[in-house]
Amino acid sequence: LQEVLHMNGGEGDTSYAKNSSYNLVLTKVKPVLEQCIRELLRANLPNINKCIKVADLGCASGPNTLLTVRDIVQSIDKVGQEEKNELEHPTIQIFLNDLFQNDFNSVFKLLPSFYRKLEKENGRKIGSCLIWAMPGSFYSRLFPEESMHFLHSCYCLQWLSQVPSGLVTELGISANKGIIYSSKASPPPVQKAYLDQFTKDFTTFLRIHSEELLSRGRMLLTCICKGDESDGLNTIDLLERAINDLVVEGLLEEEKLDSFNLPLYTPSLEVVKCMVEE
Amino acid sequence: LQEVLHMNGGEGDTSYAKNSSYNLVLTKVKPVLEQCIRELLRANLPNINKCIKVADLGCASGPNTLLTVRDIVQSIDKVGQEEKNELEHPTIQIFLNDLFQNDFNSVFKLLPSFYRKLEKENGRKIGSCLIWAMPGSFYSRLFPEESMHFLHSCYCLQWLSQVPSGLVTELGISANKGIIYSSKASPPPVQKAYLDQFTKDFTTFLRIHSEELLSRGRMLLTCICKGDESDGLNTIDLLERAINDLVVEGLLEEEKLDSFNLPLYTPSLEVVKCMVEE
Repeated sequence: LQEVLHMNGGEGDTSYAKNSSYNLVLTKVKPVLEQCIRELLRANLPNINKCIKVADLGCASGPNTLLTVRDIVQSIDKVGQEEKNELEHPTIQIFLNDLFQNDFNSVFKLLPSFYRKLEKENGRKIGSCLIWAMPGSFYSRLFPEESMHFLHSCYCLQWLSQVPSGLVTELGISANKGIIYSSKASPPPVQKAYLDQFTKDFTTFLRIHSEELLSRGRMLLTCICKGDESDGLNTIDLLERAINDLVVEGLLEEEKLDSFNLPLYTPSLEVVKCMVEE
Repeated sequence: LQEVLHMNGGEGDTSYAKNSSYNLVLTKVKPVLEQCIRELLRANLPNINKCIKVADLGCASGPNTLLTVRDIVQSIDKVGQEEKNELEHPTIQIFLNDLFQNDFNSVFKLLPSFYRKLEKENGRKIGSCLIWAMPGSFYSRLFPEESMHFLHSCYCLQWLSQVPSGLVTELGISANKGIIYSSKASPPPVQKAYLDQFTKDFTTFLRIHSEELLSRGRMLLTCICKGDESDGLNTIDLLERAINDLVVEGLLEEEKLDSFNLPLYTPSLEVVKCMVEE
C-alpha cells in the first residue's frame, strides 16, 4: 500500500492542490501550534537556539504543504521574539514527509518563491530556513533516534498502514457489502477490524516517533475524529453512494464494490485520548 | 538559472536516466571513495558511530542517483568492518541535493525496492539507511553549520551558477560568435569570463560547504577537467556543430546561436589543484 497510495499530484482540476480545504483546518490549528512552540522553546532543548529540527508527517503536495511550513516558521519566529530568549532567528530545518509516490516535485518547484516570500514578509534570510524531504511511511522509522525537536502532523492519521484483514468471511464473502470503509452501517466485526488496525497503527506511530524526539521535544497531531451520531453524511459516504449508483446503473460490477475497502478510519475522540494517555 | 536548469527527468528516451554514462565514472571513483571513508572513520568524529551524515551534491535523477548512494553505503559498511571499530552498522543519513526542478519523484519511487535490496544484499536493515532530499543550488547554504560528516559530488562542478557576464561586447555584439561555451576556439576574453565565473563559483562552493562540515569531516569532489590540447571533439563541440548546421540550413536564426552560451566550464587540472590548496 505504501508504494502506491498518494494524494493526486500536479495542479490539474482533480489534484489535491486544487481540491483540498486543508487551509481552513490550519487556521484552527494555529493557536494550538503557537502554544506548542511556546512550550517547546521554554523547555530549552539541546542545540535549539542554533537549529530547530521540525518535521511535517504526511505533508502532501502543492501549495498546502507550504502553508503548514509557513505557519510553523511564523510561530517559531513570533514566539521566539515574545520570549526574547535569543531564539528570534535560529536556523529552522523542516523535513517534509509523505509516501514514496507523493508529488514532492510540485512542492520543490515552489520553494524559490517561498524562500523569497519568507525573506520579504518575515525577515527570514535565505538559508536560515532549510526545507528537506524524507519520503517513506510514517508508520516506519524516518529520523535517527533522539534527533528531532518538534513533530507535526495534521489530518493524516486517518490513513491506515493497510486495509484491515478480516473484511472477508471464511466463505470468501465480503463482510462489508456495499460499503467502502468503517461506516455506521458496517457490521460490528468490520468496525472492530478497522478499530484494531487503527489502534495498531497509531501505537506504532507514537512509539516510533517518540523515539525520534529529543527528550522534552513535542508532537502536535491533529486527527479527524468521529462526530456525533446525529452528524449527516461525510465525503466518504457520498463517494460510497456514488459508487453504489454506478453498480445499480450496471457501470460497475457489484463484486468490485464489495471487495473495495479504503485504508481509512476516523476514531472516536475517546479512543484517541485513551491511547495517547496510555 | 537555478530555478530552471535540470537534467531531463523521467525514464523516456531523452531522459538523463537513459542517456548518462555516469556509472562508468563511479567505478573509477570507488577506490578513492573507500580511501576517503577510511580516513573519515579513523578521524573519529562526534556522533559518527551512531549516525553518519552524508550528502551527494548534484545527485540528478533516476537509477544513477541510487548507484552513488549504494557505493557510499557499501563503502561505509566495508571499511567499517575492516576497521572493526564498532562502526559496522551506524545509521546512515544520505541527503540528495540537486536544483529545484530536478526530478526527485523518479528517485523516491525507486526507494522501496532499493531499501529491500540493501537489506538483502548488504544486510542493511530497513530504517538503518535513511535517504532524504535537499533541493537547492549547491552554490548556496544547504546544511546547518558543522552538521555533516561527508560531502560527495561527482561530475557536477562544471555547471556554473550562471552564464558569465561579459559575453557581449559594448556594442551589443556577441563575443563568442558561433560558439556555445568556453571552447579552444573562443576569444581570450570569453575564456577569461568563464574562468572567472568558475573561480568565483568554486570558491563559494568550497567556503560554504566547508562551513557545513564538522571539523575533520571530508569532501570528495570529482570534477571534469580539460584534457590535452591534442584531445579530439567533446560532446559539447559536437552539439555546437549540430547547432551551427541548423543555422547554415536556415532552420535556426544566427542571432539565437550567437546569444546562446552554456553555463558550463571545464577547468584545467592545475586551476582546480591551485584553488583547493588555497
